[in-house]
Amino acid sequence: VTASPDLDGIVAHRMRRAGSDAISDILAATGLPGMLSMAGGLPSAETFPVAALAAAFDAVFTHRAPAALQYAPTPGVPAMREALAQRASSTGASVTAERVLVTSGSQQGLDLVARVLLDEGDTVVLDDPSYLGAVQTFGIAGARLLPVPADEDGMDTTVLAGLLAAGERCKLVYVVPHFHNPTGAVLTAARRAHLAELAERYGFPIVEDDPYADLAFDGQRLPSMDTLTDRTVRLMSLSKTLCPGLRVAGLVAPQPLLAELVRAKQTADLQSNTLGQYAVAHLLGDPGFLPAHLQRLQQFYRGRAGQLAALVAEQLPWLSADPPRGGLFFWCRLTHHGLHADRLSRAALDAGVAIVPGPPFCIDRDGSRHVRLSFATLGEADLRAAVQRLTVAFDRETRSLGAASARSRSTAPHTH
Amino acid sequence: VTASPDLDGIVAHRMRRAGSDAISDILAATGLPGMLSMAGGLPSAETFPVAALAAAFDAVFTHRAPAALQYAPTPGVPAMREALAQRASSTGASVTAERVLVTSGSQQGLDLVARVLLDEGDTVVLDDPSYLGAVQTFGIAGARLLPVPADEDGMDTTVLAGLLAAGERCKLVYVVPHFHNPTGAVLTAARRAHLAELAERYGFPIVEDDPYADLAFDGQRLPSMDTLTDRTVRLMSLSKTLCPGLRVAGLVAPQPLLAELVRAKQTADLQSNTLGQYAVAHLLGDPGFLPAHLQRLQQFYRGRAGQLAALVAEQLPWLSADPPRGGLFFWCRLTHHGLHADRLSRAALDAGVAIVPGPPFCIDRDGSRHVRLSFATLGEADLRAAVQRLTVAFDRETRSLGAASARSRSTAPHTH
Repeated sequence: VTASPDLDGIVAHRMRRAGSDAISDILAATGLPGMLSMAGGLPSAETFPVAALAAAFDAVFTHRAPAALQYAPTPGVPAMREALAQRASSTGASVTAERVLVTSGSQQGLDLVARVLLDEGDTVVLDDPSYLGAVQTFGIAGARLLPVPADEDGMDTTVLAGLLAAGERCKLVYVVPHFHNPTGAVLTAARRAHLAELAERYGFPIVEDDPYADLAFDGQRLPSMDTLTDRTVRLMSLSKTLCPGLRVAGLVAPQPLLAELVRAKQTADLQSNTLGQYAVAHLLGDPGFLPAHLQRLQQFYRGRAGQLAALVAEQLPWLSADPPRGGLFFWCRLTHHGLHADRLSRAALDAGVAIVPGPPFCIDRDGSRHVRLSFATLGEADLRAAVQRLTVAFDRETRSLGAASARSRSTAPHTH
Repeated sequence: VTASPDLDGIVAHRMRRAGSDAISDILAATGLPGMLSMAGGLPSAETFPVAALAAAFDAVFTHRAPAALQYAPTPGVPAMREALAQRASSTGASVTAERVLVTSGSQQGLDLVARVLLDEGDTVVLDDPSYLGAVQTFGIAGARLLPVPADEDGMDTTVLAGLLAAGERCKLVYVVPHFHNPTGAVLTAARRAHLAELAERYGFPIVEDDPYADLAFDGQRLPSMDTLTDRTVRLMSLSKTLCPGLRVAGLVAPQPLLAELVRAKQTADLQSNTLGQYAVAHLLGDPGFLPAHLQRLQQFYRGRAGQLAALVAEQLPWLSADPPRGGLFFWCRLTHHGLHADRLSRAALDAGVAIVPGPPFCIDRDGSRHVRLSFATLGEADLRAAVQRLTVAFDRETRSLGAASARSRSTAPHTH
């Protein structure tokens, strides 16, 4: 027997809709020795509250084992649901713990929403460009993606209103309202209100995925969509707020939908890890912890973003970017004629720095003139070196563009 | 705005196939004050290696934070994949870490297998009766369930061979080969070989879900199905071996299938919790830990099963059960004429003890004459009290049966 029996044709059709994982090569390359990465969506490990988490796990082992090692109810450990309800209430509409489902990261929240709401061919409205993980999840669920153009104020709700008025049926709208991935845009208050009004009028839920809201450089955030419409499903990630490795997050949904999401969660993985829920609930239960931690976090990323903004202005005149007001990313336009994001990203890898080209994020829109740069994980010296490598990649790529264009001029047939 | 907008009609069709959660009322009742539970599938918290786990988490926080709090690759933390590969190799065919995917419990392994392999209407073969979580997961995936009768030697593979020879198309076969839930049966070596031969002949994969294999009272287990056919997907739970609350498990699959399972995992929840993986890998990396721990575990459950066997023999003559050779459950037949498992279970709840009636586990078969009793979580005094309450429930139920039968005799129409 071998380890690779013939399994052709046994894979389900839905898996063929997952799409190519366009950036997995780049992310794989970030593990190479010496590679500097501006590619991932990772928060900086320097921001993790290691000592506070270690103390929380220690307290749980001392006082709550073995309950923290046993099975727990599918909706979540009560203290964790309560902690998420309090966090949700302080940043949006007031909710009780009964409205909360603990999930294994917000990606699972997204997946559960797709399972519960989407039948084959249902239409999902989302920004163009959009978060790749959402595009893949909705794709595997068999949804039809209806991209709506977005600008520096987020999704253009006037375009959406026009589509709906023209008879488009929408099963859900997906938004990343603060510091959008990849664009960094913040959905304005006026557009939030307009979107909520459309949700009420046409009866669709809004899936609000807001992992970067806590990373506002000025500490300010707009209230959750759920203050504007009760048709909101809030995904509450803690990956950028605390750390990603615990896979403890939550969602808040209106009650009839929450019950269905709990049923879907039960078949998906029974429950999220009990121990992590006890520990995070313990940590968030300390009223002094989060405000101080968030202040440090915001200061940290404000500093990093400022460093990258200065370096781009000084050394990368062929990149145009509005520095973001929060989050982890610069979404940069390539101003040099003929420069293609895919080719530049490959040249950058060769020069020892990983960045993500625009096309994978884009649905209908042309992403070939944009790249996404993360400023989160590189310290000042590495960030400086990474930018230096980008100039090397740019020089090589434009030289080869020039040579190709010269070649194409010299070999062009003179047929006029 | 209220918390319950009208969401009628927006839930996907697949959710309507999840079936009723027949035992959720019973499991909810196990939380009532004073209730003694023989109902759940929980391991005993007394068996959890609390001190060893606390030390492992402490070591990870000391030496591996912040990596253990950061995102990790979707297939798993390398050390955890390696630990699972070693565990798999010591109980089945030799496998490398590249064949392992870390999952958030074995329930997620089951769900990923269903997502990757099952299209609407595909046929899944499984024992009748079968594990409820599997029935629900395959149901939501839209599979057609093809139950095959099982006896004390597990699935009757001769019946399966007949179905396949008659033209049944089977997309996968699901088995719980050691100490089956609920029946406690062990699939014999001869039937394993027969099943493997059928998998090779008809080209279907076998999904081997083996959470109770480490709980053999005599420490013996049969080798994994993967020693017989490389068409095996092994689900490797640690919930009964270490504890359920970490949600760190794994699966071993042939390579082309593993890559698809990794893609499905990525959209499902990106990855399993990094910290738990580091800690479990640390614990399993200590070569002295697992053998000693398993010995204690087997001795513990052997003792508990023996206590229940003695109590059933002494006090519950209306229950017939072959004491199991491992696992957590007695599958008991009701020998008293007219006694129905659903009614007895309700009467038991009223008397303060939770048990699970047979029907929810059964697909085609009649489960109304069986109940499942767990001996795992109750200490000797509680077990004795629980059995006492079962006699109370039995007395009440048979009295009411007698009264009903007397009533039906006295009110029977005298039509000739």
